[in-house]
Order: sequence, then structure tokens, then C-alpha cells
Amino acid sequence: MAVADWAAARGHMLLDPTVVNLNTGSGGPLPRATFARVSELRAHLARAPMDFLLREVPPLLWKARERLAGFLGGDPHRLVLTTNVTEAVNLVATSLKLTAPGEILLSDHEYPPMRWTWERLARRQGLELRTFRLPPRPAGPEEIVDAAVAAMGPRTRLLSFSHVTATTGTVLPAAELCAQARRRGIVTVVDGAHAPGLIDLDLTDIPCDFYAGSGHKWLLAPTGVGFLHLGEGRLDALEPLQVSWAYHPSAGPPDERDRFGSTPRLRRLECEGTRDLCPWLALPETIDFHAGLGPHRAAARRHELAGRVRRRLTGLRGLEPATPEAPGLSAGMVAFRLPPGADADGLRRGLWEHHRIETATVEGPDGPLLRISVNFFTTETEIENLAGALEELTTGHQAPSGHERNSES
Amino acid sequence: MAVADWAAARGHMLLDPTVVNLNTGSGGPLPRATFARVSELRAHLARAPMDFLLREVPPLLWKARERLAGFLGGDPHRLVLTTNVTEAVNLVATSLKLTAPGEILLSDHEYPPMRWTWERLARRQGLELRTFRLPPRPAGPEEIVDAAVAAMGPRTRLLSFSHVTATTGTVLPAAELCAQARRRGIVTVVDGAHAPGLIDLDLTDIPCDFYAGSGHKWLLAPTGVGFLHLGEGRLDALEPLQVSWAYHPSAGPPDERDRFGSTPRLRRLECEGTRDLCPWLALPETIDFHAGLGPHRAAARRHELAGRVRRRLTGLRGLEPATPEAPGLSAGMVAFRLPPGADADGLRRGLWEHHRIETATVEGPDGPLLRISVNFFTTETEIENLAGALEELTTGHQAPSGHERNSES
Repeated sequence: MAVADWAAARGHMLLDPTVVNLNTGSGGPLPRATFARVSELRAHLARAPMDFLLREVPPLLWKARERLAGFLGGDPHRLVLTTNVTEAVNLVATSLKLTAPGEILLSDHEYPPMRWTWERLARRQGLELRTFRLPPRPAGPEEIVDAAVAAMGPRTRLLSFSHVTATTGTVLPAAELCAQARRRGIVTVVDGAHAPGLIDLDLTDIPCDFYAGSGHKWLLAPTGVGFLHLGEGRLDALEPLQVSWAYHPSAGPPDERDRFGSTPRLRRLECEGTRDLCPWLALPETIDFHAGLGPHRAAARRHELAGRVRRRLTGLRGLEPATPEAPGLSAGMVAFRLPPGADADGLRRGLWEHHRIETATVEGPDGPLLRISVNFFTTETEIENLAGALEELTTGHQAPSGHERNSES
Repeated sequence: MAVADWAAARGHMLLDPTVVNLNTGSGGPLPRATFARVSELRAHLARAPMDFLLREVPPLLWKARERLAGFLGGDPHRLVLTTNVTEAVNLVATSLKLTAPGEILLSDHEYPPMRWTWERLARRQGLELRTFRLPPRPAGPEEIVDAAVAAMGPRTRLLSFSHVTATTGTVLPAAELCAQARRRGIVTVVDGAHAPGLIDLDLTDIPCDFYAGSGHKWLLAPTGVGFLHLGEGRLDALEPLQVSWAYHPSAGPPDERDRFGSTPRLRRLECEGTRDLCPWLALPETIDFHAGLGPHRAAARRHELAGRVRRRLTGLRGLEPATPEAPGLSAGMVAFRLPPGADADGLRRGLWEHHRIETATVEGPDGPLLRISVNFFTTETEIENLAGALEELTTGHQAPSGHERNSES
């Protein structure tokens, strides 16, 4: 599409015109159609709550499950809807039984709360936790696979890694990593927080045991959408985080769609009492939006814009790219290492406070990173403004440290 | 207030004009002001998500916590916000350590998922679960206290009961029950799903260890509001259901308000990754609505309407009241026993399908009950229509059994 077409596509988004949003990686704004749909559903819930919950929700819930499964290349009968990726990974880590002694293996780029989640499982079940180092700016996916395989051993019970790292936006070769783990009898849990809506995701290609994702980032779904896709043979591996009215399923086939818009087995895992399901129910409109945009065209546009960010920012204020350049190894995000002693959070705050530019700082294994997310709605002008702002900002402009911290990446 | 004033108050509610809502007990409609506020907050979240989450949420979150604590007679530093009462009770039952062997004591009127929640704890920790029988239609609170005290023994580790039962709408003497339990070293968990917004609730009077509640029923808060109030000495008794970014609090006083709109200790329990906090943040407007209405006047109006329901329905189609008549022992709900062999769900469905009247059926220890909730917005005409509909309905009108079930009570 031409730049003019992207300007038109931007017009379909709810965006604060005073804000430069370069942080879809933390949370994406909503398409107007998605917001309109979720608001319409919520109005029904507000006006006639039981009619909505008892009668309108069930068919919409199954439709949402089918559409999301189709979008992910998954199976609606194995798709647990959750609030976010945190809940999805906790669902696994709170109830999956592993053989002790042994170890849980993670990359050194995992989102810290996910590492703590696995630490809690390790502590409760008497296992150890070990991390392997991802090669910095690898030239190809095989470097990543080699590093992971070298770390797998006879004591490894579970491997968890980000499909797209929250630190540098590196796309890991999930299919090959899971195949290698499976060959060794290692359970795999893929943290796909950033994947849906960002990369071409097809779960049929990824032989993992559990795949978790969030909808509020690149999928541009309302806050409150996440999922856990259960791999083959893993339908009965988990216990729900909470006991709810779906805890004791009524008689009937456990894995067939029933009148509640779910299967009894999925509902047992996903039901957590009365809560706002409207974000889930707006998934069809959200997925329609991506289809209208053309996922490949949007990805190509992000690639183009990310290249521009990389070229324009490298060297500015001593920034050095930490995201690999090799084809297929990154998407949507470019992260930069800061010179020694630089105050990353101060820089991020300065960009916001003096220029209304929203970015993220993330803690990588080798120190803090400034992470820039671009999306189809990002403009060349915004990138120029970012570069100009970085040139202009001095440490003198920075707000006192610790005032605000970006807790979600 | 005169009837005309209640008609004006009804005008402040979002209500589907084609629906007769006699089921606030399952879920309440929203005041227009509450819906407007939560929608406004969600628009900001949709438009500029990180600006909203990082900068707008923290002060609003603390304000919401303070206002809810004030409304409940609790302490904001001990008030964990949750999605609903299910999550709040699960938070206790998933991590509280009890001494085994021993038993967990419940009334025989508890909401079945709550019983299953305690069964899971009992199974995991090697305890037993026992129920005691609530006296049917007691003449005074002392009958209830006597029944509970008679059931407490040296093996009783925990007592859980509903402040207002979901079955018959009976108000249990929570303060006295908790005092009796405490005297015997028994931990108390009060299921206050129906209490906030329905009865005059003051947590300072109730010496319990944990008090859980929901906002989407009588409080008329947006779906997604619940809470757990931690009793004295219980601040550090629990572990979070999920590990999130708040799992390892940064240094600083654990029980003082910090820049996230919480205390580090509360946030550790309540943070579950990125989710829609807007229902919590609309609590001030929700509580303002109750203040404007006058909680005592609204309670008196519900009492008056409930009396009318009792008088008008008793004997119709063989209905017999199961809710006590004694002063102070019921609020907002009147439940009726059905004659032997009657199809309770069929009756409820008939009321909906032929008359658009929303009621609930609940399973009591002695069989199914038809439960009618009245609220300040209920009209005398609606009650007449309910009576007329019940007279008119015959079993021939009833839809096939099992098509729809009211899972939330």
C-alpha cells in the first residue's frame, strides 16, 4: 500500500492525536470497529445483565473461540480463553506436574514475572531453574537453536521461551525449538505474548505442549483477551486456577461444544465466576480488522518502519541496536542499548514529558534497553520526531528517577 | 420517598424497557452515571493505553480503594480488589495453610462452587468438610447462632458462611458467628457476595479473618468488581493466585500506599498482569449513586416490595415462602419452595419466554427454589405482572428442560 493508504488505515484506529504511540509492544490502541463492538456488548450487559450472560453470550463465545482458533491455526476445542498471557502461563505453572528432581530451562530474555512464575513451580515441586544465553544479534535462527539444544540435558523437564522476546523483539524459531525439545521428552511452553497480530502465527507448525498469548498488544484486542492453546495429549494436564461453577462438568462429552459456548473441559479451566467477557466476544471484529488490513502488508510496513527507526536512531545519544537485523529474526520492535551510565527510565520519561512520545524501557540480560514499537499506523514523521526529540533531550530535562516505571512489557 | 420519587430514581438506571428485572441477586443493571464513567475510562484505555495505565490509573485506583473501604467500613490498606467473590474466596482457599487433620465447616446453604472451593482445599491439605443445617425460616438470629455453635468442635479449623444466603436471601448474624468462631480459634471466611449495596454492612463490627464480596449484584457496579478484606493479623497469610510483575515488591514499607495506587502487599495479591481495571475505577461514581439514593430508604423500599412479593405469590401455583419473615433476617430476595414434582427451571424459562420476566432458580438443601429479587427500581406493576404470569403459565408453556441454566446466583 502507498503511504496515503496507511494514513487511511490509521484513520480506522482510536488514537489520541496528541500522543505518538511507539509502544504497541506494551499495549495497542483499538480499531474503532473493535471499540464500537465491545461497547455495544457492554451496554447490553449493563442494561439486562442476565439476558446477556445467559442468552447472548453462549453463541458469541463459541464464535469468538472459533475465529481466534482460525486466526492462530489452532483448534477451538483446545483453546482456553484467558485475561492475558500472565494468566495463561500461570494456569500451566500452577498445576502441571513435573518429575523431580530435574530442571526448568528458560532463555535469559524471558519477561521477569514469567521467570518468577516458573521459579514458584520449581520451588513447589522441588526442581531447579536454569537459563541459557540467547546469542546477541544472531545471524540466523540456527544460532538460537544451537544455544538452546546445547542447554537441554537429561534433567530438563520443561522449556519455556518467548516466541518474540519482550526485550529486543527477536523472533525465536519456535517450531524447531519445540521439535528439538519434544525429541528429548521435554515439555514446552511458548510465551507468545507478542506474537498474535505481529508475526505470521500458525500453531499447526509448532509442536509445543502449551502456547500462551495476549490480545491487548499486537492483536489490538480490548484489554482482557488472552489465551492458552493446549497441545496434543495435554487436554487433561491442568487444573483451574479457581474453582467456579464449571468445576464439576455435567455429564456429556467433555471435548464437544455445549450450550455454554465452550466445551466442558475448557470451561472448567477458563470460568472464573461472573466477569466481563465482552473483550473475548469482540474477537471476530478484531480479527476482521486484521483481515481488512492484510496481515502480510501490515508486517511489511512494520518491517520498513522498523528499518527506518534502526537507521535513524543508531548512534544518536550513543544508542546501539540490540535487535538482530537478519531476515525473519525481528518484527515490529527495535531495541537499543544505551551507553554506560545512561538513565533509561529517565530517557523514556523525557520523551513522554517533553514530547508526548510513548516508548518502553525493558531490562535485558546485559542492561536496560530503549524499545521502540512501530505499527502500521506509525508515520515517518513520528519517527523523525522521535529522532529529533532524542537529539534534543539532555539529562537536565529528565524527571526525578523512580517516579514512574513501565511494569508491562 | 413517594412512589413518584422511586420512578424518578428508576430513570437514573440503564434498564431494558422490555425486561422485568427481578434478578439483581444474580446481576444488577448499572446506574447511567456508572456506565458513563466506566465507558469514559475505557475510551482513554483504548486510545492511549500506556498513558492510561501508567499515569491515569494509580491515583484513581487508590481513590477507588479508599471509597470502597469507606463504604464497607473497612481499611483501604487491607482491601484487595478482585474480579468477583469467586476469585476472592479462591485467593483464600488456594493458599491459606490450615492444621490437618481437622475440618472445614460450612452452612448447608452455601453456593455450590464455594463448597467445591473448600473441598479442593480440604483434599489438598488433608482435612474434611462438614456442613451444618441452617434452621429453616428461623424466628430470630439466635437460632442460627445456636445451630452454628453446636456444629463447631475442637477439630474445626475454618468456618465459612454467606452473609446473605444465595438460596433464600436469609441474612446471617455474621458478627456473632465470627465472634463465636474466634473464641474457639476457628478462622472465618464470610462470603458477602450479596451484601454490599443490599444490607447495612460495617466490617468494623464483624470480627472475621476474611470478608469477600462482589460488586456486580446489589452494588450495581460494572461486572468485574469484587474484593477481599483481610482481617487483623491476616495481611501476610495469603499467596497470590498468579505470579505477576508485582510478585516481588520493591523495597519500602509493605503496607503503605505507593505510586501504583496500592500497597506493595495488596498489589502482590491483586495484580494479574494487564487487565481491565476500569470497573474498579468507577467505584466512586457507583458509591455516589447509592449515597444519592439513600441506602436506608432504598433498603426500606426493598423491604416493602419484598413483603408485597411474599403476600402476592404465596399459594400461587403452590409456592410456599422459604425466606424468613422475622425482622432483619432477610433483604431484597424472597425465595419460594415449589410443590413436589414442579419443574423450577421450566417455570423460570416460561416467565422469561412468555413474559420477559427475569427471575432465578436456585438449588436449596431441600430442593429447588424460585428466587425473586426486588430493588428500588422495581415497581408494584412489575410484581402484579409476575403474579399474573405465574397464574397464567401452565406446564404446557414450558420450554424443554435443560436448554438454559442459571449458573450464577
